[in-house]
Amino acid sequence: MSSARQKVQESNDQTAIRAVIESVAQAHYDKNAAGIVAPYAPDAELYSLAPPLRHVGMKTNEIQAWLDTWEGSIEREVRDLKIAVTGNFALVHGYYRLGGTPKSAGRPISFWMRATVALQCERNGWQIVHEHVSVPFYMDGSLRPAFDLQP
Amino acid sequence: MSSARQKVQESNDQTAIRAVIESVAQAHYDKNAAGIVAPYAPDAELYSLAPPLRHVGMKTNEIQAWLDTWEGSIEREVRDLKIAVTGNFALVHGYYRLGGTPKSAGRPISFWMRATVALQCERNGWQIVHEHVSVPFYMDGSLRPAFDLQP
Repeated sequence: MSSARQKVQESNDQTAIRAVIESVAQAHYDKNAAGIVAPYAPDAELYSLAPPLRHVGMKTNEIQAWLDTWEGSIEREVRDLKIAVTGNFALVHGYYRLGGTPKSAGRPISFWMRATVALQCERNGWQIVHEHVSVPFYMDGSLRPAFDLQP
Repeated sequence: MSSARQKVQESNDQTAIRAVIESVAQAHYDKNAAGIVAPYAPDAELYSLAPPLRHVGMKTNEIQAWLDTWEGSIEREVRDLKIAVTGNFALVHGYYRLGGTPKSAGRPISFWMRATVALQCERNGWQIVHEHVSVPFYMDGSLRPAFDLQP
């Protein structure tokens, strides 16, 4: 592959990968569980905000149950994505802001998390094979999650 | 490259990458700040346990200051590493157990975190270009970090 051809391909890959990430954000807003789950490989290893240490695959019924704990739409704002493509493999990292009103809280919340996402290009396009999202915690004795940080 | 040749190369890469991860664990035990910092690219983007959202590069003096807050050795046990190599790029994920006695606590602590590490093969070997470590937190209203989980 010539260098120019390679550059165009890489740019196409980056556009496709960004679209995958944005589709998941849109599916949060639409509270569309199937849309959230769609780009994940069935055996994707997920390090999520909530225990346990690892989840394997996204389950539509579990996502639906989680969506149902929110009043109205859920915002997932995506910021500062860095996308590195090597052959059929891509690594993405950046920030997601989660916003909305959990029914249990009865008032809106909003916080930023860090996200690292690994994707593999399969016959049907880019699939998420690993995802790690987290919020750091204050080591001032309080151990509270640092929900007040800005990227 | 023939498929057999490729397999041997991949296995060599995996061994080299595992050695990098183990060298950082050993450097924790030895409280050797320079040894912890050595494999990190100067512009590595780090999503750490403590705020802010992102740190850029490992600084020897900061690591030394952190090491000095512990009594005696620090254990970093590495478990269940999965290493995927694509050309000059590698993605690693698994678990680290951090154990030891923080001077502020005066008693031993031990907990598991998730780790996602991206490495790039440079002239001098494999370098860490991105790292994301975290502990999930309980969404039972307590928001406490889940220090009691086992891989």
